[in-house]
Amino acid sequence: MYHLTGNDTICAISTPPGLGAISVIRMSGPEAIEISKRIFHPRERDLDISLVDSHTVHFGTIGDSTGLLDEVLLTIFRAPHSYSGEDVIEISCHGSPYIQQKLIELLLEQGLRLAKPGEFTLRAFLNGKFDLSQAEAVADLIASHSKSSHDLAITQMRGGFSKKIKILRSKLVDFTSLIELELDFSEENVEFASRPELIKLLIELEEEIVLLIKSFSKGNVIKNGIPVTIIGKPNVGKSTLLNTILNEEKAIVSEIPGTTRDAIEDTIVIGKYQFRFIDTAGLRASVDRIESMGIERTWEKIHQASVILYVFDATADSFEDVMLAVSEFKEISDNSKKLILIGNKADKLKRLPSGFKDFVELETIFVSAKRKENIHLIAESLLKSIKDENLSGSPVVSNTRHFEALQSALTSIQAVHDGLTSGLSPDLLTVDIRKALHHLGEITGDITSEEILGNIFSRFCIGK
Amino acid sequence: MYHLTGNDTICAISTPPGLGAISVIRMSGPEAIEISKRIFHPRERDLDISLVDSHTVHFGTIGDSTGLLDEVLLTIFRAPHSYSGEDVIEISCHGSPYIQQKLIELLLEQGLRLAKPGEFTLRAFLNGKFDLSQAEAVADLIASHSKSSHDLAITQMRGGFSKKIKILRSKLVDFTSLIELELDFSEENVEFASRPELIKLLIELEEEIVLLIKSFSKGNVIKNGIPVTIIGKPNVGKSTLLNTILNEEKAIVSEIPGTTRDAIEDTIVIGKYQFRFIDTAGLRASVDRIESMGIERTWEKIHQASVILYVFDATADSFEDVMLAVSEFKEISDNSKKLILIGNKADKLKRLPSGFKDFVELETIFVSAKRKENIHLIAESLLKSIKDENLSGSPVVSNTRHFEALQSALTSIQAVHDGLTSGLSPDLLTVDIRKALHHLGEITGDITSEEILGNIFSRFCIGK
Repeated sequence: MYHLTGNDTICAISTPPGLGAISVIRMSGPEAIEISKRIFHPRERDLDISLVDSHTVHFGTIGDSTGLLDEVLLTIFRAPHSYSGEDVIEISCHGSPYIQQKLIELLLEQGLRLAKPGEFTLRAFLNGKFDLSQAEAVADLIASHSKSSHDLAITQMRGGFSKKIKILRSKLVDFTSLIELELDFSEENVEFASRPELIKLLIELEEEIVLLIKSFSKGNVIKNGIPVTIIGKPNVGKSTLLNTILNEEKAIVSEIPGTTRDAIEDTIVIGKYQFRFIDTAGLRASVDRIESMGIERTWEKIHQASVILYVFDATADSFEDVMLAVSEFKEISDNSKKLILIGNKADKLKRLPSGFKDFVELETIFVSAKRKENIHLIAESLLKSIKDENLSGSPVVSNTRHFEALQSALTSIQAVHDGLTSGLSPDLLTVDIRKALHHLGEITGDITSEEILGNIFSRFCIGK
Repeated sequence: MYHLTGNDTICAISTPPGLGAISVIRMSGPEAIEISKRIFHPRERDLDISLVDSHTVHFGTIGDSTGLLDEVLLTIFRAPHSYSGEDVIEISCHGSPYIQQKLIELLLEQGLRLAKPGEFTLRAFLNGKFDLSQAEAVADLIASHSKSSHDLAITQMRGGFSKKIKILRSKLVDFTSLIELELDFSEENVEFASRPELIKLLIELEEEIVLLIKSFSKGNVIKNGIPVTIIGKPNVGKSTLLNTILNEEKAIVSEIPGTTRDAIEDTIVIGKYQFRFIDTAGLRASVDRIESMGIERTWEKIHQASVILYVFDATADSFEDVMLAVSEFKEISDNSKKLILIGNKADKLKRLPSGFKDFVELETIFVSAKRKENIHLIAESLLKSIKDENLSGSPVVSNTRHFEALQSALTSIQAVHDGLTSGLSPDLLTVDIRKALHHLGEITGDITSEEILGNIFSRFCIGK
């Protein structure tokens, strides 16, 4: 559990774990400077780091009675001009796991506490450096793997989304004051707020929240990867195709030494988007015939996908076979899913199977998974499947917590709307208005609890 | 190959690879500040980072025409007051692999070059920030896993060893000038250098170099781990014992989140030393009887070890059996190896096997590998096996390159000594003196070549 009243000094390794050229150990809290003075020995002997300017860097050594630990650079950030809003000291040491560990042990001996995941960011939030949705965006930013998810996170971190929510909430607050004024004068039965005006405002709020809620399906896939499922009859080469797509595309993602990425099975970045192949291993084994797609498990895989690649054997399946499968697919699927037909083993074809030549209803790509021919056409087609609406236009919701809070807020606003239409008394209206305000406030952290904060920050990495 | 004349601007990720709270990208070279100005947008709009003080930190954003990449802290170090001695810029960004990669790509687009391993340190060496043996110690420091190897590296990085070599070399240079003076006046057949004085100096040099050469066996095991080999008859529980030692000791090494160590099979740190169990997996399989130790492969394992643990079955092997094995071992081993007897399965004993009670010639420990009883006694005994000479007293050689250079220097000095004794002419003496000077100079980098530098720095990590 997070204890929000904590005013102690915390420390953590802020750089990625392991061995590197340098590592950064961060301290934050009222004792950060005093404790640094005890263990840091500046090269300029008469330098007193409690007197130096904020945002300055100092060379020296770290050590205790057992000997010299390292030569380091110490950077000082004075409250409130630091990440957390507290006094912050960053020590840049050699990137040896041994030194990192010993330095942390030294700080713990001096009375510092090891920071919990996200605790520096929690303190930044508590000190008003940014609101809760901005804090959450920091974790999203660190976890983002593609340009689109990165852009989404950075827009949110810079406050784009919070601003929108704050405007909605302030409109609702204005509304409340008028209603509450009526409450104060309830015996006189006056209406300070014009009912048509109020209803107009509620409709406006509803529309804006609905837009945000709708944006979640897009925001969510951008953040977690656009889900793609490969289906098809047995032996058409589905798994070969998947491996070929993954290898070809992974190979062209430029890899700079030192940027090793977490191995995420079956995920690739094409252009600025990340695509996530849903549990296709399972699918490959069990879903062999498109007719068996009625099976709940398979249906779910298709349901989760934004894009379906239907693979057929171009040397064996006729145009009519494929059309039959397509019509079966359309029966069980909804229109939001993009279906792409992939004719595999095309290297063995002399000409296209009849029927496909003039077929334009669905995108059809002929490839050879084995010979890696035309695989780039699939990548291009996946990219095209994304309706590239301008993300910078209006805020996009990518966080499930925000999505749920918006849904709850919408329900409450709709209740107010209904109540207003049916002439509900102001004291009853305010109950739902307060609920809506509460849910919008949860997003930005104006309304919060230790439980919510604990949930959010426990997902951060240590040292942030 | 390293091109020592390179005066371009280099960049690299300096923090460990992967995901973390923050990462540091480092640039070094004449263009570092100018290029930063193009991509870094300080929060204080009118701030010109080409005008700010060295060792100051500035908040701002990084981005190009495609959008905002990150909010960062930029630290400036002006030449020569930087690690490399050049203008250095460090950008502290969010520790997302995506951001790290994009930031590097952005810098490369701006004309920077990706730094080779150790290239920042190479530049520091070329700019006279420290000598070659100090530069090598930086890599050792980052790789060190125990207090002893860390202390060795940091002493060398701080110049303890270089100082010693420089004193030796300067004595030899004085010697050379006297001999060369005689060369200038060779027709007059005068002796400027008193022969007894010269021989005294050579003996002194020889003694000091021999001491350094001898220290290598110690320095090498400290750096790479003290080699331990477990031997014994089949079914006495050797592999169970090894696993128990490794698990028990690894468990007590305090592990702080974020300091994940590279998994090094069969290596543990006890106290301030690292112990390395030599390829015992192979031994366990093939060396079943101590009589078969004559086999070359096995002999080599024993030869490599500093400590031998001879394991016997305390419930089955008599004192005489064990003594027979010990005497066989002594025949094939030299005295430098410490032999410790381990009586396993002691949990099943009611009393010690007769003979062991008053046996003090060799350390004998009764344990139960299976029940993890008395394992700590083995750890204590391994620690005791190290003659804990005071390392800070005289420099210790831990680097194979230095060891080899010292051996070559010694050979040349001995040749000078022989030549002097046998009345060799000064012009012939100077050949060997120059050789000795050359080899000593190789250690500190006074004498160097691109090949040597390439070899040394290619072992560094990127970004250092």
